[in-house]
Amino acid sequence: MKKIGFIGLGAMGRQMARNLVQRGFNVHGFDLNPAAVDYLKQAGGAVAASAAKATTDADAIVLMVVNAAQAESILFDDGALATASEGAVVCLMATCPPKTVEKLSARVQALRYRFVDAPVSGGTVGAEAASLTIMAAGEIGAFAAVHPLLEAMGSRVMHVGDKPGQGAVVKTINQLLCGVHIAAAAEALAFAEKMGVDAAGVLGIMQDTAAASWMLRNRGPRMLQAEPEVTSAVDIFVKDLGIVLEAGRESCAALPLAALSHQLFLSVSGRGDGAADDSQVIRAYHALNGQQPQAS
Amino acid sequence: MKKIGFIGLGAMGRQMARNLVQRGFNVHGFDLNPAAVDYLKQAGGAVAASAAKATTDADAIVLMVVNAAQAESILFDDGALATASEGAVVCLMATCPPKTVEKLSARVQALRYRFVDAPVSGGTVGAEAASLTIMAAGEIGAFAAVHPLLEAMGSRVMHVGDKPGQGAVVKTINQLLCGVHIAAAAEALAFAEKMGVDAAGVLGIMQDTAAASWMLRNRGPRMLQAEPEVTSAVDIFVKDLGIVLEAGRESCAALPLAALSHQLFLSVSGRGDGAADDSQVIRAYHALNGQQPQAS
Repeated sequence: MKKIGFIGLGAMGRQMARNLVQRGFNVHGFDLNPAAVDYLKQAGGAVAASAAKATTDADAIVLMVVNAAQAESILFDDGALATASEGAVVCLMATCPPKTVEKLSARVQALRYRFVDAPVSGGTVGAEAASLTIMAAGEIGAFAAVHPLLEAMGSRVMHVGDKPGQGAVVKTINQLLCGVHIAAAAEALAFAEKMGVDAAGVLGIMQDTAAASWMLRNRGPRMLQAEPEVTSAVDIFVKDLGIVLEAGRESCAALPLAALSHQLFLSVSGRGDGAADDSQVIRAYHALNGQQPQAS
Repeated sequence: MKKIGFIGLGAMGRQMARNLVQRGFNVHGFDLNPAAVDYLKQAGGAVAASAAKATTDADAIVLMVVNAAQAESILFDDGALATASEGAVVCLMATCPPKTVEKLSARVQALRYRFVDAPVSGGTVGAEAASLTIMAAGEIGAFAAVHPLLEAMGSRVMHVGDKPGQGAVVKTINQLLCGVHIAAAAEALAFAEKMGVDAAGVLGIMQDTAAASWMLRNRGPRMLQAEPEVTSAVDIFVKDLGIVLEAGRESCAALPLAALSHQLFLSVSGRGDGAADDSQVIRAYHALNGQQPQAS
């Protein structure tokens, strides 16, 4: 890979791009936000004045954008695909609905570019530490071509299927579990508060019983804070569980727990707290049950 | 503790009683099921012809019965309390609704007996290995008196409060999370099957991402088997999530995820599969979405 065009330098994208730079890749980045571009510049990456300039003669286009519509617009309307090298690999790392990824991939491949669908799990912490889990799908040659890049950004790179969209399927299932587990932790801890037992004590006990989940351990302590640091926002799960439900509709699968959890995140967003840490889905329970948070 | 009357020698109770015997306690057991009584006899315990005989002159009465109504009936109608030593400690280890435990405790304490509410987590595996988590609540002197017994049955004995009923609260919250996590794992794996990705592969990936839960790791593999070994039955969660919802009603707390999960376990029980392994809550999803299980 001689040159990589990296589009989307948000909270995660900038860290991923920096990790590529640090491991010796020739990264040209673009983002509409000047602060994001500055970050990459400080980290030693090249920056471009447009998406199409970042991808000019690039062998790989890495997309860590907000959604599939933005990816499509960058590739086709903004000309990022047309300027890339012949046979360049488009590597879509954002969380997108599986069917949308399939369609976008078909459109890219029709122009004889290659496509790898490679969503990630691990959040900003994993992006920074290059410890992301990457669920990649695509024709094996294209996957092999971007494999060194993916290894530079994650610690677990899995090839989950030959068809773009299958990475998105696995990521969708991952987000279903993550979203339901956060909401379940909130239901349990708000209930502990309501029942008058020490919620922090309960949290300590549950981390080593059959009730344990990664999310309970990670988000639980922040649920007991009134204004915790934001590591991932409520609105991210409004979006991600929205993608889960969209995938459910596309395949005609009822997903009642995901649907209910989505409503709880939506409720917190609707109350004006969409930018709060996603642990604050517990506020939906405080609202539902007329509770004040337990003093901590 | 000179003598322990142990009532309720079911799948868990018999293992717990055996562990007491093996650690040198003088255990006198009773159960209505002759096979259960035989098990304790083989393990070296004494067996009694009635609950009241098992507890005659006992310093502690351990109850590992089906529910609080059975515990109350044994103590008061069958005379198990009246025959015990003065100031004996009643140690209720079954999963019961918090308010019911409070009331039963008050009735026992009114007769100058002591009461420790000590529900457990860890299932038959934990009961057998003496690795249960025990969530005990009660006046500290009573807790101290039964502490050596609890240590013989579990590897994590926690004193979660001074009031009987608080152990049941913590156990209720534990079961809320366990039940929702099993249902969430079923929703995710049934969805993987529906979307045509390899559910076993997905399960492998999710065990090390933010989607992980103890239940996903433990029950997930059995969800992908058509007729798995029964380690804990669907009907146990019909009962336990029923207790969760009863506790929610008592404290006026809406618990929408627990309520929905309860419906899914009920559905599987209603289809005639209440005795199946609780992993088979996935059959509710197969029924909902018209799916055959993925061939494994």
